[in-house]
Amino acid sequence: MFWICTFCSQRMAQSSEVSRAAAVARLSVPFSPQGKKQPRVGAQQHPAGTSHLHRAHMCSHVPGAHPAGQRAQGHWPEGQRVTGPALGLPVKVTGDAPAQTASLGGTVPAREEPWHPSKHRSRQVGGLALLTLGAAQSTGGYRFQLTLGATMTETTAYSGSGLVLVKNPHLDLMEEDVLYHLDLGTKTHDLPAMFGDIKFVCVGGSPNRMRAFAQFMQRELGLPGAGEDVADICAGSDRYAMYRAGPVLSVSHGMGIPSISIMLHELIKLLHHARCRDVTIIRIGTSGGLGIEAGSVVITDTAVDSCFQPRFEQVVLGDVVVRSTELDKGLAAELLACSRDIPDFPTLIGHTMCTYDFYEGQGRLDGAFCSFSSEKKLEYLRRAYDAGVRNIEMESTAFAALCGLCGLKAAVVCVTLLDRLEGDQIRAPHEVLWEYQQRPQRLIAAFIRKRLGLCPTD
Amino acid sequence: MFWICTFCSQRMAQSSEVSRAAAVARLSVPFSPQGKKQPRVGAQQHPAGTSHLHRAHMCSHVPGAHPAGQRAQGHWPEGQRVTGPALGLPVKVTGDAPAQTASLGGTVPAREEPWHPSKHRSRQVGGLALLTLGAAQSTGGYRFQLTLGATMTETTAYSGSGLVLVKNPHLDLMEEDVLYHLDLGTKTHDLPAMFGDIKFVCVGGSPNRMRAFAQFMQRELGLPGAGEDVADICAGSDRYAMYRAGPVLSVSHGMGIPSISIMLHELIKLLHHARCRDVTIIRIGTSGGLGIEAGSVVITDTAVDSCFQPRFEQVVLGDVVVRSTELDKGLAAELLACSRDIPDFPTLIGHTMCTYDFYEGQGRLDGAFCSFSSEKKLEYLRRAYDAGVRNIEMESTAFAALCGLCGLKAAVVCVTLLDRLEGDQIRAPHEVLWEYQQRPQRLIAAFIRKRLGLCPTD
Repeated sequence: MFWICTFCSQRMAQSSEVSRAAAVARLSVPFSPQGKKQPRVGAQQHPAGTSHLHRAHMCSHVPGAHPAGQRAQGHWPEGQRVTGPALGLPVKVTGDAPAQTASLGGTVPAREEPWHPSKHRSRQVGGLALLTLGAAQSTGGYRFQLTLGATMTETTAYSGSGLVLVKNPHLDLMEEDVLYHLDLGTKTHDLPAMFGDIKFVCVGGSPNRMRAFAQFMQRELGLPGAGEDVADICAGSDRYAMYRAGPVLSVSHGMGIPSISIMLHELIKLLHHARCRDVTIIRIGTSGGLGIEAGSVVITDTAVDSCFQPRFEQVVLGDVVVRSTELDKGLAAELLACSRDIPDFPTLIGHTMCTYDFYEGQGRLDGAFCSFSSEKKLEYLRRAYDAGVRNIEMESTAFAALCGLCGLKAAVVCVTLLDRLEGDQIRAPHEVLWEYQQRPQRLIAAFIRKRLGLCPTD
Repeated sequence: MFWICTFCSQRMAQSSEVSRAAAVARLSVPFSPQGKKQPRVGAQQHPAGTSHLHRAHMCSHVPGAHPAGQRAQGHWPEGQRVTGPALGLPVKVTGDAPAQTASLGGTVPAREEPWHPSKHRSRQVGGLALLTLGAAQSTGGYRFQLTLGATMTETTAYSGSGLVLVKNPHLDLMEEDVLYHLDLGTKTHDLPAMFGDIKFVCVGGSPNRMRAFAQFMQRELGLPGAGEDVADICAGSDRYAMYRAGPVLSVSHGMGIPSISIMLHELIKLLHHARCRDVTIIRIGTSGGLGIEAGSVVITDTAVDSCFQPRFEQVVLGDVVVRSTELDKGLAAELLACSRDIPDFPTLIGHTMCTYDFYEGQGRLDGAFCSFSSEKKLEYLRRAYDAGVRNIEMESTAFAALCGLCGLKAAVVCVTLLDRLEGDQIRAPHEVLWEYQQRPQRLIAAFIRKRLGLCPTD
């Protein structure tokens, strides 16, 4: 059994018999700010005084989730193949000080190979493994997660410098970085000159809407050239559109998690290469509401997946990586306060559910395929409502996770085009939908003007 | 234990003790073309003589996958909560005639509630369940899959009429169908007049490329107006672009599975409403190659996920639904034959891996985040190669699954822009990339001309 630090790839404990004391000690030392060990690899050093992305692996497999203090065991005959979901069973251990810790013991046959990501999905295991949870013991105040079988990550990224953090030691070794889908690059463009003074990034699905937002911000900020057309900075690519208005960058991201993920990877590298500081990023979009009036604006506190869990799961080299989807609470509160100054502007804070599909994935009855009844759909949507979900869209978990990883303060502000408890089809007239879609833009404009110390226009 | 037919929602066997004979009989009768039972619900009738989408549930839970004939057991203390992945453990039983069947037995306490999707993720279970696989017995030649805990689907859709099948009984009850993201609808547009004669649909990520393809097809088919601009049929929406050239429809789908899924749901309904017949659909795109020369064209035989499995997993009402990703083998062979007629045109048939992410998800070292080494990346890509993967993109599993469900003959033809075993960044000059991107278009043009009985232009 062993843990691996993501950056230094060091195995932190490996033995067929690991005692609790040894395991905890090995885990805590390399992350201790006062610790002597500061392992480094490549160009990446663990910054003193900060916690950072790490992950933990264990060889054992236990069926079912176990309440604290409970003991459980799983047995597999020698040579039997364990595949897929059985290996993905998460056992989370999260805490601050004193942290909850895990003790590991039991007999693992000597022939047992060390666990390895490349063998993760089709591994030969045998023997008996035991897990006991719940003994409280300080590990120096660090939060961490343990997982059985699968890979999980936990991060508390922040940067005292206000710079945008990339977490990729390979980038420093690259002579040139081509941001392919943005049609920009470190050798072909002077990114610090083009983007170094950006303080606000607003992203949204539709390229037309993001152009309109840039034009709107030009007027709101009283910038020269207001009212004229704005140039698409990514005109060489039709994957995304990018416009700027003073310190505000407006970028389209298409629809769905994969599409916004590509854009965010390249945008985060862009902000990093441009040495931007103290950037706030906000997704403005449209969504389906749950139990709230159409036209309401939802400021997301936490993005949840289609099982209502605050997590973003990604497969990396065949492993499942789970990331936190919390958003900046202070920023959400600031946005809500701004909304109070706008008359007739229904706004609330709530959970936002993010799905991989618009039709079946959001329980719609009007797709090309539907194998459930209206009752089952409503039962699901009501469970979502009871879990705190107030609107549904298709990008927020990835947005929250990736922005969180690089230390960007992030918010999601979406208007609802309909109440999904009332129906599925978006039938409001174009002019009504158009006015709804202005609402997140108006709120963000008020927020940016306030941040920049400009008084309201009205 | 019971099975549920997706369309009729009928429970097909439910008992605390189910014998093999009873279970098999109950499963086979409703699907038998000669059977007397033809259950119907709403407007949807099971068409005689066709197999159709169905799914099977069982209450029992068994850890691990079990080779044929092996017996295994899992035990959970009463009242313990079983969550998430433990319920997703798949046990597939697939066969033709004689089909493999499953026998189910063992003691399930009388207090056991029937399994229900809404309780799926957090269900109280108790007692002992047994599963034995491998006894061969005819079920009338039907292929089927059984799953422990999770929902799985199996379909062998075909339509003797050549019409495009939608599988949604609710659609017949709708007065109007608004295809929101295409800005089309059954009341606002005469869909049969606009699209009834479409025979080929080509889809690709980039709107500009799909406009260029429509213009190219106008010239290739010698249509009037060739060389002039083509009108975007979806101009009222900037989510997708749609152009037509004679019997060919050219549609953009953006990047990633969610984006193509929305488009496909609405496109399939469009073809259904327009009463199109004998439509062939082809995705033309770009991809990263694996162990093949940049510029090679890969015709996909099977789309696989990032664990190299031929499946498309979707979450529907909180349940995981697994769909087949096989593509039409005859169509792939026909396309390969066409490629042989084009000089200097490297083309091959292979598996295509479809991921949810371009950077970490495809093992790239050049994203904003990367927590693995170059060695681990290459190890993963080599495993993909060994599993038969020849290129990597981001839409093929959803495309194959959704087209397969509605009986559309479908192919995926992607050019490779680089060899991922050699690097990550796309660095070829624009003019080289431009020529590469023409290749799938040239192949599809040759294929369509051949199908239409037109002789080659050169």
